[in-house]
Amino acid sequence: MSDQVLERDGQLTLDIDPDRLLRRITELARIGADQATGGITREGFSAADRQARTYLMQQARAAGLLPSVDAAGNIVIRTAAAESGDQVLMMGSHLDTVVNGGRLDGAYGVLAALEVVQTFTESGLKPVHEPVAVAFANEEGALFPQPFWGSMAIAGRLASLPKDPRDHHGRPLSEALRQAGGDLDALGSACWPPGSITAYLELHIEQGPVLERSGSRIGVVEAITGRTVLTVEVRGTAGHSGTSPMEGRHDAMTTAARIVLAAEHLARDRRLCRVMTVGRVDPYPNTPNTIAGTVRLTVDLRDTSVWRMAGAEEALRRMLQTIEAATGTEIEVVAETRSDPVSTSPGLCAAIEAGADGLGLPHERLPSGAGHDAQVVADIAPVGMIFVPSLGGISHVPQEDTAPEDLLAGARVLLRTALRVACTDHTPPAGHSRPVD
Amino acid sequence: MSDQVLERDGQLTLDIDPDRLLRRITELARIGADQATGGITREGFSAADRQARTYLMQQARAAGLLPSVDAAGNIVIRTAAAESGDQVLMMGSHLDTVVNGGRLDGAYGVLAALEVVQTFTESGLKPVHEPVAVAFANEEGALFPQPFWGSMAIAGRLASLPKDPRDHHGRPLSEALRQAGGDLDALGSACWPPGSITAYLELHIEQGPVLERSGSRIGVVEAITGRTVLTVEVRGTAGHSGTSPMEGRHDAMTTAARIVLAAEHLARDRRLCRVMTVGRVDPYPNTPNTIAGTVRLTVDLRDTSVWRMAGAEEALRRMLQTIEAATGTEIEVVAETRSDPVSTSPGLCAAIEAGADGLGLPHERLPSGAGHDAQVVADIAPVGMIFVPSLGGISHVPQEDTAPEDLLAGARVLLRTALRVACTDHTPPAGHSRPVD
Repeated sequence: MSDQVLERDGQLTLDIDPDRLLRRITELARIGADQATGGITREGFSAADRQARTYLMQQARAAGLLPSVDAAGNIVIRTAAAESGDQVLMMGSHLDTVVNGGRLDGAYGVLAALEVVQTFTESGLKPVHEPVAVAFANEEGALFPQPFWGSMAIAGRLASLPKDPRDHHGRPLSEALRQAGGDLDALGSACWPPGSITAYLELHIEQGPVLERSGSRIGVVEAITGRTVLTVEVRGTAGHSGTSPMEGRHDAMTTAARIVLAAEHLARDRRLCRVMTVGRVDPYPNTPNTIAGTVRLTVDLRDTSVWRMAGAEEALRRMLQTIEAATGTEIEVVAETRSDPVSTSPGLCAAIEAGADGLGLPHERLPSGAGHDAQVVADIAPVGMIFVPSLGGISHVPQEDTAPEDLLAGARVLLRTALRVACTDHTPPAGHSRPVD
Repeated sequence: MSDQVLERDGQLTLDIDPDRLLRRITELARIGADQATGGITREGFSAADRQARTYLMQQARAAGLLPSVDAAGNIVIRTAAAESGDQVLMMGSHLDTVVNGGRLDGAYGVLAALEVVQTFTESGLKPVHEPVAVAFANEEGALFPQPFWGSMAIAGRLASLPKDPRDHHGRPLSEALRQAGGDLDALGSACWPPGSITAYLELHIEQGPVLERSGSRIGVVEAITGRTVLTVEVRGTAGHSGTSPMEGRHDAMTTAARIVLAAEHLARDRRLCRVMTVGRVDPYPNTPNTIAGTVRLTVDLRDTSVWRMAGAEEALRRMLQTIEAATGTEIEVVAETRSDPVSTSPGLCAAIEAGADGLGLPHERLPSGAGHDAQVVADIAPVGMIFVPSLGGISHVPQEDTAPEDLLAGARVLLRTALRVACTDHTPPAGHSRPVD
């Protein structure tokens, strides 16, 4: 670590401003808040999202930083005018939320990144790599169904964009993006060239129960799980629930129930993959006195190994064939989403661990079960992710929370990791996302 | 049978007008028809329903009959002014439909009853009991959630009506009833005194596959199954489908799947009741990447024996307790609907069988799995029900259909049964609905 910020006895003197960070988290949480549920709704490119973006840019400007909006609507906060050829250290997350979500998912990582960049500036440090904070646009895809929108643009992955994308109400993205300061026709300009980002760090709440259960205060993400979402359509024969004898029924609901339990069995009992979940079930016609004719359901399958993901999917498909034959229904499977697992940078993991050790914070390595902008940025830069515990392991709900001391601990680990990376002149190879196996 | 309508060799000369009946079925099917789906939507007391009611009354008047509307909105078609103390033979069904239903459910029974009454009148017969056709109002309860509305009024069972009932859109029943010619404040006047109906006959499509599978052309309904509808709420713990390890989950969806299969098992494999169906499943929040926190589902349980119904429900509740303990979720059961099984009159069953025999039509006795106005009228009169085969065993869908020769066969059996009852001076005791065991 640079000795610019070290006292003679080796202790780090530089620190974030804890009150400022917690104040900003509280202020931002008022935007899009529902008084009744306590939940927050800031769908990407909605009015509440725009209000949150304005808040962030005001805070950055007041801190003497230089916020700007790229063509994809990402807010990029720099300490100085960019010089061509400089490698930056990028940190951030997203401001948008799901419907009736919590105040920390995304927002915490953005505000902590701002806090770290501001701390750098105020310290007068001259880092080798300029620290840059970023708020990626529309990570959740709650309104416009293009999740990871902003990070995809930065990584140059929006080339195959559908013509004139629209939100769930039919409103064009082009207009929503323009209102947010972006420009759909200039998306290419949002792309960062390979090698221009020396590292990307994302601080985030865990959104699961692992750290809380183990007592670790810092999670070092070693991989972001891959995800396959299958849509399964079961076609049986609708009928009157009173007049159709049990014999001869082709009930799509009982077939769907077998599929739900098969998915659970493969992950929980046979341990073929980390998790497999049926979260959505849509029967038709869904009335008490009609045998379901059709049921559509989703199977969400995740693991950090592509091989295990493929094996679990294959086992599921074989079970579906058995169920199809046994029930006399038709089962059709369509893969809606396939994202490969992404490994984080071992060097950044070590830097995070060193940061946590310096603060005396117990830490552990774990995979991220949720998706994050980091997995997309991994296409063009080494990435590292820091987790802090989620109270009760829950997220995407109004009750989502993390203890204030853990919020501060995470930001301090981010600062130490950033110092280690930004003040070191190393040029790691620009990584491309590689499956972990 | 009266010799008024018999030739010397014992053959019945009286017949319905087959073309007239089929024409009316076709004409009525145009009202409320959806050109796209072929389905019919005539929710009780809707504009389409009023149009169908007008059609029926015009046809009755043109036939020289005397249609009137009672306070509950039932259309009662008589051959002559009522004389106090006369016992009538009532026949009919309902004109209203479910949303996007078929053209025969209810409508067929009403038009066949009109046809039989018109045939009686045109024959110059002087029956002992005046034949009366009836179209009961709002049997389905599709818009105003009071199914069997009209027959309940006739049987005097609307005393405990909620104040100011409203439809699913909040519109008051009083106004809808007034538009249909009824009067909510005079419901008591729609009630028929015990003993005033010598018998009630209802001709209906089977709505199930039994007759089609066996090859019988006439079904003689020996009982209408009782029905219990339970709403089951499963409360688990919502969570992120990626970040929550399989261990420690309390997934309401996998619990619900176990309940769906338990219900099937009790009816199909253990044969504790005739049918048990989970037709409706509503998970929350019902998104692919969230473990379901809550699932509400309905269990529809039917049998012709109250004892078997109670036994099957008890067995289900025991299984739910076992599932609750095994899954660590909470399961709450609420009984939404309980209707006891109703037996039809043995004498009317025999009369229907004699009618079918006279026409050389193969017949069989079977229970009705669906509910019908007959089960309500059974409170105040002996009831008989005639079924004709449903193509493919389906109903409440646009494809609901019956072969024309079967439609005519059913109406001819109704005519012969009506002749036997109307021309015989017998005064059976006014029945009250009694559970079958």
